[in-house]
Amino acid sequence: MTTSSIVPLIMAGGSGTRLWPLSRDTMPKQFIALLGDGLSTFQATLLRMKDDRFDRPIIVTNHEFRFVVAEQMQAVGVVGEIVLEPERRDSAAAIAVGALLASRRSPDAVCIALAADHVVVDTDSFRTDCITAAGLAGTGLIMTLGIVPTHPATGYGYLEPGPSLDVPKANRLARFVEKPDAATAGRYIEQGFLWNSGNFVFGAATMLEELAAYAPEVLEGARAAVMAAKTDLDFLRLDAAGFAHATKVSIDYAVMEKTKYAGVLAASFDWSDIGSWDSIYDVKPKDPEANVLEGPVVAIDTTGSLVRSEDMLTTVIGLQDVVVVATRDAVLVTSKAAAGKVKTLVERLKSEGRREATEHLRMYRPWGWYQRIDLGARFQVKRINVKPGGLLSLQKHFHRAEHWVVVRGTAEVTVDGKISHVHENESVYLPIGCTHRLTNPGKIELELIEVQVGSYTGEDDIIRLEDVYART
Amino acid sequence: MTTSSIVPLIMAGGSGTRLWPLSRDTMPKQFIALLGDGLSTFQATLLRMKDDRFDRPIIVTNHEFRFVVAEQMQAVGVVGEIVLEPERRDSAAAIAVGALLASRRSPDAVCIALAADHVVVDTDSFRTDCITAAGLAGTGLIMTLGIVPTHPATGYGYLEPGPSLDVPKANRLARFVEKPDAATAGRYIEQGFLWNSGNFVFGAATMLEELAAYAPEVLEGARAAVMAAKTDLDFLRLDAAGFAHATKVSIDYAVMEKTKYAGVLAASFDWSDIGSWDSIYDVKPKDPEANVLEGPVVAIDTTGSLVRSEDMLTTVIGLQDVVVVATRDAVLVTSKAAAGKVKTLVERLKSEGRREATEHLRMYRPWGWYQRIDLGARFQVKRINVKPGGLLSLQKHFHRAEHWVVVRGTAEVTVDGKISHVHENESVYLPIGCTHRLTNPGKIELELIEVQVGSYTGEDDIIRLEDVYART
Repeated sequence: MTTSSIVPLIMAGGSGTRLWPLSRDTMPKQFIALLGDGLSTFQATLLRMKDDRFDRPIIVTNHEFRFVVAEQMQAVGVVGEIVLEPERRDSAAAIAVGALLASRRSPDAVCIALAADHVVVDTDSFRTDCITAAGLAGTGLIMTLGIVPTHPATGYGYLEPGPSLDVPKANRLARFVEKPDAATAGRYIEQGFLWNSGNFVFGAATMLEELAAYAPEVLEGARAAVMAAKTDLDFLRLDAAGFAHATKVSIDYAVMEKTKYAGVLAASFDWSDIGSWDSIYDVKPKDPEANVLEGPVVAIDTTGSLVRSEDMLTTVIGLQDVVVVATRDAVLVTSKAAAGKVKTLVERLKSEGRREATEHLRMYRPWGWYQRIDLGARFQVKRINVKPGGLLSLQKHFHRAEHWVVVRGTAEVTVDGKISHVHENESVYLPIGCTHRLTNPGKIELELIEVQVGSYTGEDDIIRLEDVYART
Repeated sequence: MTTSSIVPLIMAGGSGTRLWPLSRDTMPKQFIALLGDGLSTFQATLLRMKDDRFDRPIIVTNHEFRFVVAEQMQAVGVVGEIVLEPERRDSAAAIAVGALLASRRSPDAVCIALAADHVVVDTDSFRTDCITAAGLAGTGLIMTLGIVPTHPATGYGYLEPGPSLDVPKANRLARFVEKPDAATAGRYIEQGFLWNSGNFVFGAATMLEELAAYAPEVLEGARAAVMAAKTDLDFLRLDAAGFAHATKVSIDYAVMEKTKYAGVLAASFDWSDIGSWDSIYDVKPKDPEANVLEGPVVAIDTTGSLVRSEDMLTTVIGLQDVVVVATRDAVLVTSKAAAGKVKTLVERLKSEGRREATEHLRMYRPWGWYQRIDLGARFQVKRINVKPGGLLSLQKHFHRAEHWVVVRGTAEVTVDGKISHVHENESVYLPIGCTHRLTNPGKIELELIEVQVGSYTGEDDIIRLEDVYART
């Protein structure tokens, strides 16, 4: 094994709802700057692996997230292989795909499989532990990264260490155990159990052998998906028919609980899976009232609380241990103790067909973003932000006309084949049914206000005639 | 005394902040539909007095509220005299002005002085009590409407009844007492004390005599203000110089605690002064979890709480006895117990210069309303709604150009003297510095989206050249 064949394998396809209203299906928590450093946990994960000792990462994600993944990688200057799952099939299939791709790079490649939505405070310790685990993986073990518990948490699975390996903090893995109740968790801690972080280090060949032994249908589906995969722009798009054959199962269940080669390394870094709002509170610095206040927030007689607002003045009086999160289109108020029920709430919102359950008001696109700012019976107003070089699809609408007013930058507008440039404080009118395209030919962002007028202003009244981002 | 000389005197000039973020200085609680019947408490007060037995009301309000008062009166079909205070000088001055105007109508006029922000459930009982009190006022008494306490409230002053009058429930008033602590309140209730509702019934002549005796400077200022008052559109505008001489003092302190003619009638109607969010909770119907949920709201494992949202999806999990109020630009979360501290919060917001402390996002004007829907570094977007016949001032701006897109109705637009009509789905451009005017000449509301572009988009960049509403 050469160090350059240690391949970070980053699992970025999840769609967590436990941090709603910030995390939503269309833009889940791993892509959101939750921690005040301006980086998403996905980006922080990439940066932890940006080191000479590690190879270019493989990112396995859902095809819906391809543009945000590419953009966030570019923003932190990380180059890697982006693999698109046509659907979610749990961690075993994703790890199988990663192991197949890593073993193409080198037959003795070692993979470090990392969740994209975890917080790790000490990067140096993390890297050192990864290198240690990679060394053990090179001897044929499948190492799990265990976390030394700080409290009897009931939200994590636990790992029971077995006989010691010849490396400090490293043991054979005796047993995986499910999330316990508080009393059991206390006993586990006394017995030296570790939290299961869900991060693994293994030789690609070892993992493929174990998958072949214990979960052959996962491996078969993954292999078919990789064999028939297509390169699409900068992405490797797995074959849907093949991938559909990979059983939907977690790697814990498919391999880790069965393999004879499981080991565990007691990690020495601070870690959180930021699985709910109370754990976000836990990892943030507090003010003297033990509050975490972010954004335009005022709190009076309030302690032990997380209050976060994106935009809107948000005020709290006389409460203890609550979480208040205000986004542009939704507010969550919960006791910290009940924060785990956010998942239930989101399920209910989905069952009621509420758009806010799954979509953000600001919708990211490969060319930039748009955000609805007003809606009436026969009109809708949007703010549209186009990156330099951004190019919207050539399109037309059957039910609405559009007025564009440029408020920043310069737009190149094509209407029925005729190109014009629209500058700040100029406007252009797009009649119903015209074919049109918007481009930002400039060096600064283009911002415009779009006023749609018509009998129907839904997002699905769009005929894409041509699209550089392959969305037609 | 004839019944037609019973004059309702409605005090609608207050600027309560205890129901922020719904109630703000520029649109206080008495003008807001708080109770789900679509009426403001001001309108409900007008309707309680809309009865053959009462004369046209006199409304005393601040000049800032003149258009909302006129509009809300028109909406419920009540005609009355609207008197504008140039500044707030507490209740004695307002009552002095009302008594002077009522005595002009008839020397033996009886006034029923009512706060515009109280809730009364049983209109018939209320009217009967008013007539009873008016009869006693005709004998020279100044009657206060006392409320039979339902609990030892600490938020109200109390009234100690004295010797019985020859009318059921009516007594001489022995003593006013200040807001007590809970233990004292309990004793007061045992002793048969009543809550002071702050509503009074008196002969105009009696009140003027007592003011002359105990608060001559109030009467003198009020008389000067009335003598020099000017009729302005449909309003009677009190003279500012005269009114400034009226001492700023409550009628309780100026007259009621001193007069020998004070009486009290124990009212038989349910009453609330909706002085804070917990009292709003108290007067509303509850669901089986004892919650009051209004607007797009979802609550899980929550009891005894008021959750109200204007627009935005608002969710609550695992809380008891809280108030959550979400408006378009501000969120309040408070325990019911701490709801009284909203006043403190608003003071703090004012001291920090937060616009949301005093202004609503939707700003009402005599011609309709406007609402900011987006704001950027060099632009602002507004939705503007003009009533049929509404006419904005002739104006110009030094720092911004404007694009208007009509999304409903028809606009008549005058730009540098040239008139044009702009229909739905048409737009017009107003360059920096042009004089312009907007009118709705049609029969339906006119709605347009205004995109302002310029180096400064503040509300004060407006030169009003001409205004039918006398605001130049």
